[in-house]
Amino acid sequence: MKSYILSDLKRQVLARIKPTPQDREKIESHLKPILERINGMEYMIQGSFAKDTWLKGSSDVDVFILFDKESKNRMEEIVNELETKMSGYQTEKAYAEHPYLIVKDGFIEVDLVPAVKVESGDQIVTAVDRTPFHTRFVNSRLSDQQKDEVRVLKQFMKGIGVYGAEIKVMGFSGYICELLVANYGSFENVMEEASKWKPQVRIDLMGESKKNFDEPLVIVDPVDPKRNAAAAVSMKSLATFSFASKLFIEKPSLNFFFPPEVEGEPLGDIMIVEIKIEENVAKDVIWGQVVKTVERIRKELSNAGFRIIDVGAWEEGNIINIGIELEERKIGKYYKSQGPPFFIEGSLDFAKKNQYVWIGEDGRLYSVKERRFTDPEEIVKLSISIKVKHEINIKWMKEKGRGEVGSFMRKTPPWLR
Amino acid sequence: MKSYILSDLKRQVLARIKPTPQDREKIESHLKPILERINGMEYMIQGSFAKDTWLKGSSDVDVFILFDKESKNRMEEIVNELETKMSGYQTEKAYAEHPYLIVKDGFIEVDLVPAVKVESGDQIVTAVDRTPFHTRFVNSRLSDQQKDEVRVLKQFMKGIGVYGAEIKVMGFSGYICELLVANYGSFENVMEEASKWKPQVRIDLMGESKKNFDEPLVIVDPVDPKRNAAAAVSMKSLATFSFASKLFIEKPSLNFFFPPEVEGEPLGDIMIVEIKIEENVAKDVIWGQVVKTVERIRKELSNAGFRIIDVGAWEEGNIINIGIELEERKIGKYYKSQGPPFFIEGSLDFAKKNQYVWIGEDGRLYSVKERRFTDPEEIVKLSISIKVKHEINIKWMKEKGRGEVGSFMRKTPPWLR
Repeated sequence: MKSYILSDLKRQVLARIKPTPQDREKIESHLKPILERINGMEYMIQGSFAKDTWLKGSSDVDVFILFDKESKNRMEEIVNELETKMSGYQTEKAYAEHPYLIVKDGFIEVDLVPAVKVESGDQIVTAVDRTPFHTRFVNSRLSDQQKDEVRVLKQFMKGIGVYGAEIKVMGFSGYICELLVANYGSFENVMEEASKWKPQVRIDLMGESKKNFDEPLVIVDPVDPKRNAAAAVSMKSLATFSFASKLFIEKPSLNFFFPPEVEGEPLGDIMIVEIKIEENVAKDVIWGQVVKTVERIRKELSNAGFRIIDVGAWEEGNIINIGIELEERKIGKYYKSQGPPFFIEGSLDFAKKNQYVWIGEDGRLYSVKERRFTDPEEIVKLSISIKVKHEINIKWMKEKGRGEVGSFMRKTPPWLR
Repeated sequence: MKSYILSDLKRQVLARIKPTPQDREKIESHLKPILERINGMEYMIQGSFAKDTWLKGSSDVDVFILFDKESKNRMEEIVNELETKMSGYQTEKAYAEHPYLIVKDGFIEVDLVPAVKVESGDQIVTAVDRTPFHTRFVNSRLSDQQKDEVRVLKQFMKGIGVYGAEIKVMGFSGYICELLVANYGSFENVMEEASKWKPQVRIDLMGESKKNFDEPLVIVDPVDPKRNAAAAVSMKSLATFSFASKLFIEKPSLNFFFPPEVEGEPLGDIMIVEIKIEENVAKDVIWGQVVKTVERIRKELSNAGFRIIDVGAWEEGNIINIGIELEERKIGKYYKSQGPPFFIEGSLDFAKKNQYVWIGEDGRLYSVKERRFTDPEEIVKLSISIKVKHEINIKWMKEKGRGEVGSFMRKTPPWLR
């Protein structure tokens, strides 16, 4: 990588994504009156806003309100109290491992999260209790310059579609981006190292963990060595990031950070299943069911004899789309089934149980069997595992498309070619 | 096997296939004047007629005319002399390893085969020179009762379609049937033992050979231990015979010996390639090319992405038929091609060389590729390796059929169900 090209690229990226002092002031001016309402409670600002690694345009602020251990069973009650304090604001109760309160004020969204105050990261009661330790670790390890490197890395992850630990993405969280820069030193070093990754990849900043993990990427949490901070990163996200790093080193470009919208045309037979979600349920809950559905569709179609090119999912508003790309929509009613070699104990059984049995050139028994399904729509409908209220509409793509469906049909992301 | 059922069955089979004294007299009466014309030459009657293991209806007689080693280069000349001696008869020169003369007289066909007189079976000059030793061995080892057992075994082989060493069948020669009875003692013992066969099967009657052979069935030739007398038997023929033995033991029936004609209906998409042979060429030469064609069709169709149920060949007069049963006649224009995992050296190359590249859930690269052929007829035409003059006609079976095409479509032979 030529360094002048890289620093010029980084400058261009930062110009678009690094919040200005005015951006910060604007957020703070909205935040101040909210914080005044919780005066008297012990609170801490957390998340990327507190770590100064946030990106322009994202305006979520996490405010943790700390309680002692005895309060862990009255979190619901606490959130209700907070809701009362925020009267006049637009609020919404939400649930992760335990409840929290979302307060909306124009363009900003403040999450008021009750947490248990603990001595160290490995003594946590619920997952959120770890967050203050993360914030402290990042602020103690990263220079202001490195925080900008984190921003560049985050935008890179966003551009190639692997930013976020939520089920929909199964990618890299903001904290993982921070740990990568903390470990390798700079954005370009992360690129260099990630381009050489071969799973399982293991990073242990404190060099203190002996625990084995199963996930393809292991980044031992510096504040809790029993935990893999990168457990959410799927093999696909890991591969995408590593491969994008290889390509970026060869040919750095803004396309990785800000991919242009692409157009795609249907190559195989492309079925689109539109699932209209008609219930207000947390995204991670819905996407958990979407991921399961995608896996079932793959498995059932393949078992039924369909040749799958790709199955993918994306959302547009409250509609989840599942794209299913087949080599062919129509397959034969009959297929060849392989039986045992003639000299195996079970060969007589095979001949008795099956119709249309013969002996092949290789000395194995074969039979022709009838397929249970030859209509892929039927199989897909039976495979949908969405539990929340929804409506389904199936269509076949015949024409070019842009946006998410265009990306799905084009297959190749813009940074790859 | 209940022995009374079996002996009753054998009696029924023999009643239909064992030549009567009248049958023998009739052949001998035609043979006599032919033999008179070669008076003065040293000749021997060979083949199943000489061994008394021939089946009713087959009326080929092999007459070997013996010469000393010095004559081996003037075989063509000798055959021409024989042709002159046979003037008045319908004759035809034919070629195996060396030339011989076919003399036809009504229903019988006498093959006059010049051979070199040698001391023992392992000193032969050409393959035919071994024949007299085979005849002597069989006659010295088999009782009259056992010769009938050979007849029953031959008819069994015929019924299940594995009788004959020629390329079309790649099955069991008459000599192999004789050796099997010589080795196991009786037809029912052959059934019992063959039902337990597991390749490689090795039989060495003299227990004297240390040589290794590659073929699935090895029967060391008692007159030439360097030779596998069963070299022609394919895995398919071996499997068919062994499996039929298993079924026969379970449920003996005349269906094995005299299978009724069956009807079949097209299950998959069935293409029939009719190859009209327009040249007078030895069957084994044509069938050598047919077998090669069948293999190429299998390979090329499969490489092109077609899912093959079965490919088979049969002949009707001078027409060779190749049946090709596909799961589906139409396949998609595009297919998924698997590339390397992202961390392999060649992954960047794969991405550059291919269009429509993406990264799959498993971390491998994939691409969508366009098929070169989507019309199976095109591929089949390109795969035909018939060198003799011929014409081709392709059709698709839409209806039920009987005879050979019926058997091909039905798949299951009548003795199997």
